[in-house]
Amino acid sequence: MNTADSGYTLAELARLLDAELRGDPDLLVTGLSTLKGAGGGQLSFLGNHRYVQQLKTCRASAVIIDARHAGDAPCACLVVDDPYLTYARASQLFARGPDTATADAPGIHPTAVVSGQGEFADDVEIGPNCVIGPDVRLEQGVRVGAGCTIGADCHLGAGTRLYPAVTLYHDVRIGQRGIVHSGAVIGADGFGFAFDGRKSIKIAQLGGVRIGDDVEVGAGTTIDRGALEDTVIGDGVKIDNQVQIAHNCRVGDGSVICGCSALAGSTELGQYCVIGGGVGIIGHLKITDRVTVSAMSFVSRSITEPGVYSSGTLLQETREWKKNSLRLQHLDSLSKRVKELEYRLAQLAGDDSDPQ
Amino acid sequence: MNTADSGYTLAELARLLDAELRGDPDLLVTGLSTLKGAGGGQLSFLGNHRYVQQLKTCRASAVIIDARHAGDAPCACLVVDDPYLTYARASQLFARGPDTATADAPGIHPTAVVSGQGEFADDVEIGPNCVIGPDVRLEQGVRVGAGCTIGADCHLGAGTRLYPAVTLYHDVRIGQRGIVHSGAVIGADGFGFAFDGRKSIKIAQLGGVRIGDDVEVGAGTTIDRGALEDTVIGDGVKIDNQVQIAHNCRVGDGSVICGCSALAGSTELGQYCVIGGGVGIIGHLKITDRVTVSAMSFVSRSITEPGVYSSGTLLQETREWKKNSLRLQHLDSLSKRVKELEYRLAQLAGDDSDPQ
Amino acid sequence: MNTADSGYTLAELARLLDAELRGDPDLLVTGLSTLKGAGGGQLSFLGNHRYVQQLKTCRASAVIIDARHAGDAPCACLVVDDPYLTYARASQLFARGPDTATADAPGIHPTAVVSGQGEFADDVEIGPNCVIGPDVRLEQGVRVGAGCTIGADCHLGAGTRLYPAVTLYHDVRIGQRGIVHSGAVIGADGFGFAFDGRKSIKIAQLGGVRIGDDVEVGAGTTIDRGALEDTVIGDGVKIDNQVQIAHNCRVGDGSVICGCSALAGSTELGQYCVIGGGVGIIGHLKITDRVTVSAMSFVSRSITEPGVYSSGTLLQETREWKKNSLRLQHLDSLSKRVKELEYRLAQLAGDDSDPQ
Repeated sequence: MNTADSGYTLAELARLLDAELRGDPDLLVTGLSTLKGAGGGQLSFLGNHRYVQQLKTCRASAVIIDARHAGDAPCACLVVDDPYLTYARASQLFARGPDTATADAPGIHPTAVVSGQGEFADDVEIGPNCVIGPDVRLEQGVRVGAGCTIGADCHLGAGTRLYPAVTLYHDVRIGQRGIVHSGAVIGADGFGFAFDGRKSIKIAQLGGVRIGDDVEVGAGTTIDRGALEDTVIGDGVKIDNQVQIAHNCRVGDGSVICGCSALAGSTELGQYCVIGGGVGIIGHLKITDRVTVSAMSFVSRSITEPGVYSSGTLLQETREWKKNSLRLQHLDSLSKRVKELEYRLAQLAGDDSDPQ
Repeated sequence: MNTADSGYTLAELARLLDAELRGDPDLLVTGLSTLKGAGGGQLSFLGNHRYVQQLKTCRASAVIIDARHAGDAPCACLVVDDPYLTYARASQLFARGPDTATADAPGIHPTAVVSGQGEFADDVEIGPNCVIGPDVRLEQGVRVGAGCTIGADCHLGAGTRLYPAVTLYHDVRIGQRGIVHSGAVIGADGFGFAFDGRKSIKIAQLGGVRIGDDVEVGAGTTIDRGALEDTVIGDGVKIDNQVQIAHNCRVGDGSVICGCSALAGSTELGQYCVIGGGVGIIGHLKITDRVTVSAMSFVSRSITEPGVYSSGTLLQETREWKKNSLRLQHLDSLSKRVKELEYRLAQLAGDDSDPQ
Repeated sequence: MNTADSGYTLAELARLLDAELRGDPDLLVTGLSTLKGAGGGQLSFLGNHRYVQQLKTCRASAVIIDARHAGDAPCACLVVDDPYLTYARASQLFARGPDTATADAPGIHPTAVVSGQGEFADDVEIGPNCVIGPDVRLEQGVRVGAGCTIGADCHLGAGTRLYPAVTLYHDVRIGQRGIVHSGAVIGADGFGFAFDGRKSIKIAQLGGVRIGDDVEVGAGTTIDRGALEDTVIGDGVKIDNQVQIAHNCRVGDGSVICGCSALAGSTELGQYCVIGGGVGIIGHLKITDRVTVSAMSFVSRSITEPGVYSSGTLLQETREWKKNSLRLQHLDSLSKRVKELEYRLAQLAGDDSDPQ
């Protein structure tokens, strides 16, 4: 049986990737690369027809390609309908195993501090220096990287993996096949206070966090626990690095949130939304399904119609930008002046029709 | 004696929350919930009169409510002046104890690596795998979660709690009753360099960080040490997740900074300011007391008057946004054209008065 | 031999800093401070002539100053061409040693979990609770703070320091004299998925991260590994806190990236660029050398000319801001109305020339 270390024959890859093979079935492929970077023994892909010119000089042993372009390839082909999607599947075949930092010893590392009151599947791996609180349930195939802390009453579904240095507070549930990257903090207190006229009085955050299946959470991302009810992340949601999700948000199935975006408290994001990087969404909004928000936009109102939305301004040389920005501070008055001009011009022209 | 686990009678709650009880004093309350979500045995609250309709179908055993609406409640009432504030106080009664992740053993966990030269109150709790440098002083009731690192010469006031995976560099002082959430880093080097024409030469950051009493610091937040003098956070300041506070900033008492905001170096924020989420404030500014800045704003000048401030643009469908954004790049010229129009129109009309 | 603890004589400082001494060579300096804050025994500096008035009341024992202002100093002088740069060098003389949190024991702390298959220089320091994967190479003088995790096949050049709680995934290379602050995560998976119509299929991230010499990485910063090729950070790059650098970015030598900025995937930043705080740069762009982007700008296009660039809007009182922002949503139509006015006015005036 072949592994990523020894590689795969093209015949094996065709079978694993459900592709039509054009070329030598016994050719051995030991890695994956770009069209430009690939050398002998490597597999590449044409994911975007803009790169079709690169095929000519491509030195890969084989390419993943669609039928329309297969004739242009100077090497063996794995012909599929959606080469980019097949590349995604192929990449998983060449990924490193789980033993990247910690798995000198399988099972529960002797340095881990694990509460006796837990329920762990027999193949669970817990890395060095982890701390696992009471009443934690870890299902089949769960792997917890070095130095993670898991609070009381957490529950990780089958196949879920925490990379090193993830912190889960208590009452966090993650579904199956989840991936949480290092530095992520899930279940910290939502930011809730009542002001008594002198001081901000803390509102204890009594809810938890509930995350669906097939969710990925990026490095340094924070997902706060709910105030009274849970913060909820749906199935198949993908969250990039340094995203902030405040208490009681609900993120619908299949949505994607790019790096450094933030959802303020109690906002509901629909299904299959795509939130670009650096987006800020204020609290208590409702964003319907299939909304795309472009990078660095500020969402200050609910969105009821699917579509693509933006805010912000375009980059200019600072000298030009400054002039326009100063003018923007008087745009309301400029608009009124234009209206007045229209009125006066109409009068002057003896125009009966109402201007504008 | 009742605990959160066994609940509180309404009579106890009325006494603890300083409320007027209308209903059965012996009724047992075991949890807190929203008006919509509450069931039998639970306490809820009417914090906003917009939700008064929800009272009708509310199944809570009791509600925290003001006198004006108490008549509308279908259940027992804890009548107070400010129900939201009382809810905050009540929430603390129902919060979980400190043993959420680590406190299998009270005191100093045997896996913690603690320098001999420290001064710890007798009831201090230090979680597994903590590392405590020399000359650290921890006062009464300090709790340090699993995997925290505390540098030399740090000082935590009575009742302060670090959640797991907090990092304090050396010379960080935190007052009493502080809360620091996981992933926060306090005291890392400020970002200071002098450019020698070829290279950025590091300016060693010799100051520390000084944080007042009753301060909360969110998950993943970073507060840098000062270059020569300390970075200073006042009493009662509440800082949300993923906030960045650069070297030598000073944040006044009672101010609130929402998630993902950033203060660049040496900026002074006044007292009782509210900085919305995702706000950026450039360095060396002075923001007076009681300034509110709305979410995602960019503060590029000092603010001398209390008030509410904003920048940024509103969300539109991208198609519309793009048209307007392109026009914005010529707003200065548009303004000049309007002025020219006004001038020509005045001439044409034989107007003596100077236009606009 | 003098250390920072016992201080330096002015003669020693003059020699170490390559300065001309005016004053008592035996005068002992024990610390560094601002012009305003300095007291006896302290060294200060005039880094900006705006502060020249502060010299009069300065109580420092000596100042770093240029020749033009040395006559105004009421104390001994270290005369140099660039006082700010010399202050940077002086600050390093007064910095604390490395033993701030963890170095109770030099060498490899007994609580560290270190794979047998590594190659470590003899003076390497590894703090408590570190976890070091297989085939890691640590060169002369490398110091790894408490609780760091280093994945397989990482390589840290001579003199590089990781502060506590840094996480490196596998295949991360950092050059010489690097500094990585706490909470940074280097080498986490880039955010890559192919959508199959129902689900986001993960693209395994097979590249690594390659970081040059003299690079500083701020607290909580994340630098993702490449999809197929490496993410590359050049020599002398300085990266502040909470910066996000996505997969396959390339940052040129000498560039500086301020706090909370983000580069989306595959973007190339040139040499000696300065990216202000909170800037967002979308993916697949190419920014040429010596570009400065002001804070909170959004870069949505490649930049081919060196210069200073901005986007965003200026802060106003929210009441004014709202009026202008609403108008901005109709700027395209306003522009058209102005054009129409110009046309009609020209007609009315019997003007032959085409307006604008």
